[in-house]
Amino acid sequence: MEDNSLKILGSCAALPSLKMNQSAYALNMNSKTFLIDCGENTQQSLRHYCVNHSRMNHIFISHLHGDHCFGLIGLISTLDLLGRRSDITIHSHKGLEEAMRPQLDFFCNYLHFKVLFETFSPFTSEIIYENDKIEVSSIPLKHSIPTSGFLFREKPHRRHLRADKAKFYNIPIEQYKFILNGDDYVTPDGMIVPNSNLTLPPSPQKSFAYLSDTAYNEKVVDKIKGVDILFHESTFLEKDRVRAKQTFHSTASDAAKIASLAEAKKLVIGHFSARYRDRKSFLEEAKPIFENTFLGNDGNEFTF
Amino acid sequence: MEDNSLKILGSCAALPSLKMNQSAYALNMNSKTFLIDCGENTQQSLRHYCVNHSRMNHIFISHLHGDHCFGLIGLISTLDLLGRRSDITIHSHKGLEEAMRPQLDFFCNYLHFKVLFETFSPFTSEIIYENDKIEVSSIPLKHSIPTSGFLFREKPHRRHLRADKAKFYNIPIEQYKFILNGDDYVTPDGMIVPNSNLTLPPSPQKSFAYLSDTAYNEKVVDKIKGVDILFHESTFLEKDRVRAKQTFHSTASDAAKIASLAEAKKLVIGHFSARYRDRKSFLEEAKPIFENTFLGNDGNEFTF
Repeated sequence: MEDNSLKILGSCAALPSLKMNQSAYALNMNSKTFLIDCGENTQQSLRHYCVNHSRMNHIFISHLHGDHCFGLIGLISTLDLLGRRSDITIHSHKGLEEAMRPQLDFFCNYLHFKVLFETFSPFTSEIIYENDKIEVSSIPLKHSIPTSGFLFREKPHRRHLRADKAKFYNIPIEQYKFILNGDDYVTPDGMIVPNSNLTLPPSPQKSFAYLSDTAYNEKVVDKIKGVDILFHESTFLEKDRVRAKQTFHSTASDAAKIASLAEAKKLVIGHFSARYRDRKSFLEEAKPIFENTFLGNDGNEFTF
Repeated sequence: MEDNSLKILGSCAALPSLKMNQSAYALNMNSKTFLIDCGENTQQSLRHYCVNHSRMNHIFISHLHGDHCFGLIGLISTLDLLGRRSDITIHSHKGLEEAMRPQLDFFCNYLHFKVLFETFSPFTSEIIYENDKIEVSSIPLKHSIPTSGFLFREKPHRRHLRADKAKFYNIPIEQYKFILNGDDYVTPDGMIVPNSNLTLPPSPQKSFAYLSDTAYNEKVVDKIKGVDILFHESTFLEKDRVRAKQTFHSTASDAAKIASLAEAKKLVIGHFSARYRDRKSFLEEAKPIFENTFLGNDGNEFTF
């Protein structure tokens, strides 16, 4: 799996199909792997699709429906068997630890690492995790139970130093870090070279948004503006709009509309209901609204 | 799946492989389906191998290691989505309900059927379930935690009435049930026709024994004498006998020896460690000791 990529580990909604699993997604970003949701059998998908879990220390659970977290206990148990020794943190709404702890205590009391639970509110948008390079924000969604989406975004990069200018002004190496942080350069004879002459604008911040499960909800648009990849659930087709509304899910058209409003660069749709045998119809419905749409089937990988 | 047959739903030991699951077995016997153990992803195996779960009302868990029961919560959740309305009983040692109940209450509080837990002792051999046609007995095994095997055996059949004799003696139909229960027949003129002249011996009682997980243990032999199919775990090969002993598991040779001592009609081996890529070696090791040995790979079906 490449860096800065999304791998689909499970593309099914509540019912798994014969060959595809319930919700689970691996995100590689800045050399770290994050697991998003963890339906049953995620451990096999991780292996099947060659996701290296040694750098996977954080799991994000969008909401507490079983098809998004029943794979946690098996995964944790197997990681231990495979020799894991570093702690793992599960980020979720309140309730997951209480439901899982008796199982963990009973079946996994031998673990060689800690399973830590970090909770966040489903009702606000907040930074729920950060490291030196990225931050993860929660996004309240509109589902039958409290549910959060996630925005993974790189922190702002520094400007790029122009090698030609550094050479031209003979800038000492120890000055580089100040220039990269925005300082002007003062030559030994007192001339001020403005930072804008020495540097190029920083690289754009890569970003990935995960919105599942949710009904159509324009409130999310401002939070994910210009995202590189938007994953948006698309449980139903328009012909089943009534069912989508009843169950607080989206259609392929809904997903495409949100991608369009958010000016996303790429839309990946998934969380498909088992009632549809042929998933091409999802694309046929979404593409007229948002051309750059892709099916997020198990095993598919998207780079950004 | 045929009646009176065993279908392998998961042939792996602690670690699932890419295409094979952890322990789970469907047994069809006298038009009922029983699930034995329920590793993660059993719900997909049931569907993949076309096991009709509408007549599956009893699940037997051999011991409380996760690879034998982590599939329960997902299976229960899915059965409800598929419209199940009849209760399901899980037979296990004490502890499973306490570990699972918080999860069931949290994730499955909407169920349209009851999940009942029946416990039995791992230290004695006792009848833990019966219906009008079969009974299931527990068999204490020798593993790292308390573990039970199961013997499924038909109840004794009645003798068969000989149609030729019934016609010859012009026996009234209402007398048949008494003769089938062993009575002699008294003709209208007072002649006694002994039951042995009127009937043929009953059909043999079909039986299936499940012994997993266990170290080599000759104490089980008397309890499974003459069984039609013996499933015996075979986690290791002889070359890893030290590891087998340390972990209270069996080798293929161990399984074959037990089958031979028990005069089983057929031996199915399974619960294979993930360390072996080629399972033929298990057969090569077992067959010289017990010729009628078969590999219990996922999807294999054995009739009896």
